[in-house]
Amino acid sequence: MTAEAFDAVDVIAAKRDGRALRKEQIDWVIDAYTRGVVAEEQMAALAMAIFINDMDPSEIADWTQAMIASGERMDFSSLSRPTSDKHSTGGVGDKITLPLAPLVAVFDVAVPQLSGRGLGHTGGTLDKLESIPGWQAGLSNDEILDQLEDIGAVICAAGTGLAPADKKLYALRDITSTVDCIPLIASSIMSKKIAEGTSGLVLDVKVGSGAFMKDLDKAGQLARTMVDLGKSAGVRTSALLTDMSTPLGLTVGNALEVRESLEVLAGGGPADVVDLTVALAEEMLRLAGRTDVDVRAALTDGRAMDRWNAMIRAQNGDPAAALPVAEHTEVVTASETGVLTKLDALSIGVASWRLGAGRARKEDPVQDVAGIELHAKPGQNVSAGQPLMTLHTATPERFARAVESLETAVEIGGDTASVPESIVFEKIS
Amino acid sequence: MTAEAFDAVDVIAAKRDGRALRKEQIDWVIDAYTRGVVAEEQMAALAMAIFINDMDPSEIADWTQAMIASGERMDFSSLSRPTSDKHSTGGVGDKITLPLAPLVAVFDVAVPQLSGRGLGHTGGTLDKLESIPGWQAGLSNDEILDQLEDIGAVICAAGTGLAPADKKLYALRDITSTVDCIPLIASSIMSKKIAEGTSGLVLDVKVGSGAFMKDLDKAGQLARTMVDLGKSAGVRTSALLTDMSTPLGLTVGNALEVRESLEVLAGGGPADVVDLTVALAEEMLRLAGRTDVDVRAALTDGRAMDRWNAMIRAQNGDPAAALPVAEHTEVVTASETGVLTKLDALSIGVASWRLGAGRARKEDPVQDVAGIELHAKPGQNVSAGQPLMTLHTATPERFARAVESLETAVEIGGDTASVPESIVFEKIS
Repeated sequence: MTAEAFDAVDVIAAKRDGRALRKEQIDWVIDAYTRGVVAEEQMAALAMAIFINDMDPSEIADWTQAMIASGERMDFSSLSRPTSDKHSTGGVGDKITLPLAPLVAVFDVAVPQLSGRGLGHTGGTLDKLESIPGWQAGLSNDEILDQLEDIGAVICAAGTGLAPADKKLYALRDITSTVDCIPLIASSIMSKKIAEGTSGLVLDVKVGSGAFMKDLDKAGQLARTMVDLGKSAGVRTSALLTDMSTPLGLTVGNALEVRESLEVLAGGGPADVVDLTVALAEEMLRLAGRTDVDVRAALTDGRAMDRWNAMIRAQNGDPAAALPVAEHTEVVTASETGVLTKLDALSIGVASWRLGAGRARKEDPVQDVAGIELHAKPGQNVSAGQPLMTLHTATPERFARAVESLETAVEIGGDTASVPESIVFEKIS
Repeated sequence: MTAEAFDAVDVIAAKRDGRALRKEQIDWVIDAYTRGVVAEEQMAALAMAIFINDMDPSEIADWTQAMIASGERMDFSSLSRPTSDKHSTGGVGDKITLPLAPLVAVFDVAVPQLSGRGLGHTGGTLDKLESIPGWQAGLSNDEILDQLEDIGAVICAAGTGLAPADKKLYALRDITSTVDCIPLIASSIMSKKIAEGTSGLVLDVKVGSGAFMKDLDKAGQLARTMVDLGKSAGVRTSALLTDMSTPLGLTVGNALEVRESLEVLAGGGPADVVDLTVALAEEMLRLAGRTDVDVRAALTDGRAMDRWNAMIRAQNGDPAAALPVAEHTEVVTASETGVLTKLDALSIGVASWRLGAGRARKEDPVQDVAGIELHAKPGQNVSAGQPLMTLHTATPERFARAVESLETAVEIGGDTASVPESIVFEKIS
């Protein structure tokens, strides 16, 4: 038995009393937690002390580096092209990764999109792609490298070897009310992204009811914290603050969102989804040194769709196969005539989740077909009795609880709605 | 499986955000923690949130009542005399319980002193009494009642059925840096004392380097919190704030402290020990309605010693047997000539602990013979080379580390020392 360099009780007491933790203390506590020497209850007390008393930028950087050091790192430096990645803090109807990865690959920038599954009211990218017949989420590191070299884009499951301290801590935060805390969110996201070895990273930080961050100030603070962490780790990083008060596009749910992504890759699709896809692609390309490229053209001329088809095929998916469709649907109509002033992202995310699109526990299965189609968006005029949305599920007994969560989702009234002019509020780089 | 009334995550979040917990939330969280439904890591996060964000008086009262309700309660109402108890927050050389219990019993007030063992630098009353050949700490509830009726005083181990939530929480606080927090200290002490069923209670709240509370303000706050908790539970409660900057009396350690207690019961002993014993006895008797009694007389005329002998014999101890003596001693001398201005309680407590008088883990044994005899107290003149203290142990390899902790314990210099006029700083009732 080697003597431990520090005592957990002293490290916890320092943060409890509002003092900054030293780099050696942070390195030790993360390593000892990964080894099981620091107990879950000790890390819970420390996480709560961090939540309430905050960490300064150098502590957050040290914390992030210690979480990276807890596991393996990937290395894309052998590729013939630069890498650029995107991370979204999670929103409702956020299928952007699907058209974005092949779109960026068109311009000879590799996109290693190591993703997760959904938990709670926001969907998971892997869950969405798994609604495509045959598609496989699991790839080895060599397969990832080969696919990036050949096609330029890969969306697959993140390996379990990256930042294991973060995995333990994430599960602990979930049951101890220490999730919604900028230092812990920023270090969790950035430790995984830096360990993944991308050279460029664009963060899509969502703001609004359907997002972690409900207001622009806190979202900006989170974005700046993460951009600084990326830069200090040698990753070219920037962030877009984007609207998540209403769902992205007109679909929420796994197969439904794949269908909408295909519309975007075919040169169509809802304006907000197209605009955000293009904005993120331009930023990812800029970080990789590709400026003066016409991104929109690659959506309309079929080049992005070609990459998509190749990418899906490489992972055993059949891009031409029909997507599954729900057996049961129910239409929600407008209760009055007027301008649609609110279509609340959180309530719709919860409804879609209750229809079967998401999971309550990480072991739960999800329904490919479940979700919600929107027929109107805020700012549009609607008439009483007009369909506002269609609910989809394989299990109709779920309709009642889904409708419950929609009770305060819709507001109709007045002559105008305050709708953001652009899906992108602000860019931080 | 019954559905739970609350979700731990919501209760933790409320306190995290600085909100007061409602009585139903507190009742549920303590009960669910006792049942194992609220996990240790969740209680750790909640304890840290309480530590940093505090609890208001009604929350502390609810928390205390919930801890009492987690276990059984004792009942002394069948006794023919009133009960009065004392609790000390713990200090170095604090053997007061030993002469105090038989002294109060002389005046027909029963003293049910349910005690614990020492952990860390403060000694435990049971550890001290166990240095008396044959003495047994464990008694059944019936044996306690019988002894209180016959002799009027009992010092024994507290049963495990009292406030089990407090036992779990106390062990958790120890490893999560959430010990030194007034709401948690006050509710821990008072839940046990109220569950023990005494009708009167005097709290000896220590102030100074050897105590939990280093300054008078915080000690006063703790004392007032506990007095309010006792009164609102129907227990006549008061508190004395007493000096713990320097050890009590001239001995620290188990058998050494029994020896000094016998001196006090024989009408002698150091003035500070006698004064504090008398002050606490008078207060305990006042709470039981016995005023106008000459407490000091019972120490000098042998009545308190008679009760002591009966009390020790009732628990199989031999009050006439010789106390064990250490095989190894080492003398620490004064390094210069002058007024002894400091004899630090904490350092001396740690030294005694390192000599073997205390334990680091609750499973560890203690040495009856280990400890420290003091030959001078602050305010006295000393000459270079004069013995200041004698260290006692059964295991001489312990001397080196004990002497280390004494390095800053002693200060000699100047013409005068600031020594408190009285061992009792303040009375709160």
